Amino acid sequence: HKRYNITLLPGDGIGPEVISVAKDVLKLAGSQEGIEFRFQEMPVGGAALDLTGVPLPEETLSVAKQSDAVLLGAIGGYKWDNNEKHLKPETGLLQLRAGLGVFANLRPATVLPQLVDSSTLKKEVAEGVDLMVVRELTGGIYFGKPRGFGTNEKGEEIGFNTEVYATYEIDRIAHVAFETARKRRGKLCSVDKANVLEASMLWRKRVTMVASEYPDIELSHMYVDNAAMQLIRDPKQFDTIVTNNIFGDILSDEASMLTGSIGMLPSASLGESGPGLFEPIHGSAPDIAGQNKANPLATVLSAAMLLRYGLGEENAAKRIENAVMETLDKGFRTGDIFSSGKGLGFEGSLLFLPWGR
Amino acid sequence: HKRYNITLLPGDGIGPEVISVAKDVLKLAGSQEGIEFRFQEMPVGGAALDLTGVPLPEETLSVAKQSDAVLLGAIGGYKWDNNEKHLKPETGLLQLRAGLGVFANLRPATVLPQLVDSSTLKKEVAEGVDLMVVRELTGGIYFGKPRGFGTNEKGEEIGFNTEVYATYEIDRIAHVAFETARKRRGKLCSVDKANVLEASMLWRKRVTMVASEYPDIELSHMYVDNAAMQLIRDPKQFDTIVTNNIFGDILSDEASMLTGSIGMLPSASLGESGPGLFEPIHGSAPDIAGQNKANPLATVLSAAMLLRYGLGEENAAKRIENAVMETLDKGFRTGDIFSSGKGLGFEGSLLFLPWGR
Ligand SMILES: CC(C)[C@H](C(=O)O)[C@@H](O)C(=O)O
Ligand SMILES: CC(C)[C@H](C(=O)O)[C@@H](O)C(=O)O
Repeated sequence: HKRYNITLLPGDGIGPEVISVAKDVLKLAGSQEGIEFRFQEMPVGGAALDLTGVPLPEETLSVAKQSDAVLLGAIGGYKWDNNEKHLKPETGLLQLRAGLGVFANLRPATVLPQLVDSSTLKKEVAEGVDLMVVRELTGGIYFGKPRGFGTNEKGEEIGFNTEVYATYEIDRIAHVAFETARKRRGKLCSVDKANVLEASMLWRKRVTMVASEYPDIELSHMYVDNAAMQLIRDPKQFDTIVTNNIFGDILSDEASMLTGSIGMLPSASLGESGPGLFEPIHGSAPDIAGQNKANPLATVLSAAMLLRYGLGEENAAKRIENAVMETLDKGFRTGDIFSSGKGLGFEGSLLFLPWGR
Repeated sequence: HKRYNITLLPGDGIGPEVISVAKDVLKLAGSQEGIEFRFQEMPVGGAALDLTGVPLPEETLSVAKQSDAVLLGAIGGYKWDNNEKHLKPETGLLQLRAGLGVFANLRPATVLPQLVDSSTLKKEVAEGVDLMVVRELTGGIYFGKPRGFGTNEKGEEIGFNTEVYATYEIDRIAHVAFETARKRRGKLCSVDKANVLEASMLWRKRVTMVASEYPDIELSHMYVDNAAMQLIRDPKQFDTIVTNNIFGDILSDEASMLTGSIGMLPSASLGESGPGLFEPIHGSAPDIAGQNKANPLATVLSAAMLLRYGLGEENAAKRIENAVMETLDKGFRTGDIFSSGKGLGFEGSLLFLPWGR
């Protein structure tokens, strides 16, 4: 019997309900593969703010660090939107990513054959899209210093942030990206704004240097504005994309919407060592929280990524992914992926997992 | 007889050929409205680099400044891609924008009924899209200091840039955006990343303050990652979008691709006073340059914006826009907007303007 300690961070909005489904799914898949999980739930984000006054309590981080993997629901909500920076739920998430050192964020965007109609793209454009965004997650403008508020020479108020990358930060994410591309279709597109930004010029230079260690991978470079267009024009041209923190934030969300099923998309964030952080890419959707409407599949698929990338439990990961496919094949759909005339409508998203509740 | 001095900056790649069409169109529309143009062609970008060693010669800027309006083709090309920053064609464009003080970049993205099939979006999603991105153009990370290369505490090489906005920069672009929304459907969406960046927090605060002067305009705020998704999910929800320089670069290109006709989309860049800068939003497309394949309509429509926003010549602007519509109604198409089974295919994009050559 193998045993793993999993930290569950339900967070805010729909976070608790999707985490609760994913937990049940993990238990079942584990039991079928002789794996036992010990779950520990800890507060983060707005929930932690309300409980403890800070968005990432020390205890949450230390429990997370000592566990084998961390599964997060979602954070944020209108209630805390006007909080000062250090009291924003989002700050807790950023502190968690930094605290765990998970610099590599893998965000797959796959158009599932069952869901091709949910995409707003024409069928022939959406069909077969299968790409992976590798986003740098602990550097760049999210964390760069100096940052803050001040006054300029003319005495006017300013707000400022620093986009900064060091060679080792670029090199390590580049390695993850090349390795990822190698396990996929062998194509890597590095996205930057090297025609304007020095931080991007260094990015492009280092990615090109790292490429010499991966002669089997086809590397290309693209400006971020062009990438935003190409994702819509012809998303199938992409296999693996690597980019910085802020461009990755924007492009991975854009890519996710191509699939028409943002409620379906998982992510994995990995460091050099220590536990990985796994989370759906959707937000906390406060407007539908607690109504049993949320699609839990992004979190369920994040649990599959946790098994694969976090614990190396490929069989259990496959079990979950197969169960999701089976569920979709049977026609079960939550509202977000329910396109009229297809599938079954129903209330209560939790009903549609084959293993029930 | 009214007279205007127009600076033409053909630039690189397809720039010269599209400028040449737009010049003919301006002349004809002008003659029909009793307007006379004096054109002066000046080098910029790669063309200027080859000719003078710098991407924006002083003479080009001073001629542009003394004219009534500036029409630019496109800049950039593989040849200069590895140049150092101060010798990049793009740097010439940035210097031109800064030199003219054109802080407000208006980028319409309209799905024309004739071209709805060119969009990769489903017809029902694309149909009727009509939005305007108001992009801040002379501030933010494009121009912020400090910037450059250096070493960090650990002695590693770094590349860095500064995202910075002062209150007056935000206020003036906000005013342009509210005025723009007022002339449109009265809805303004301000896009930022205020859950993470201080520069965005100040942005949101100031836009909200300026809003009190426009009680008739419905203001909303959206995070940039969400905006990148919403543009694909339901672009019709947007009327006017206002955002910073880098987010505007990315989102306006994304929005343009929704229309399926990036070869059709014009832009206007305006300052407090002095000549405006008008340019197609597409690039220099070096791969098709000189082959008479490029779609000149983005530049022709930029000339219409020049007449409207730059010179206040609404009638002449309308003439050009009507001629473009007529051309499309007749079925003439360049390759970029030719969807199979519709319209006439032909070589030589210049042929299809009703006024010929
Ligand atoms: C909530 C926010 C801080 C976060 C980010 O920008 O990284 C989110 O958008 C994401 O992509 O995970
Ligand atoms: C060429 C480049 C410097 C420019 C920009 O980023 O502003 C272009 O992409 C644009 O949007 O006009």
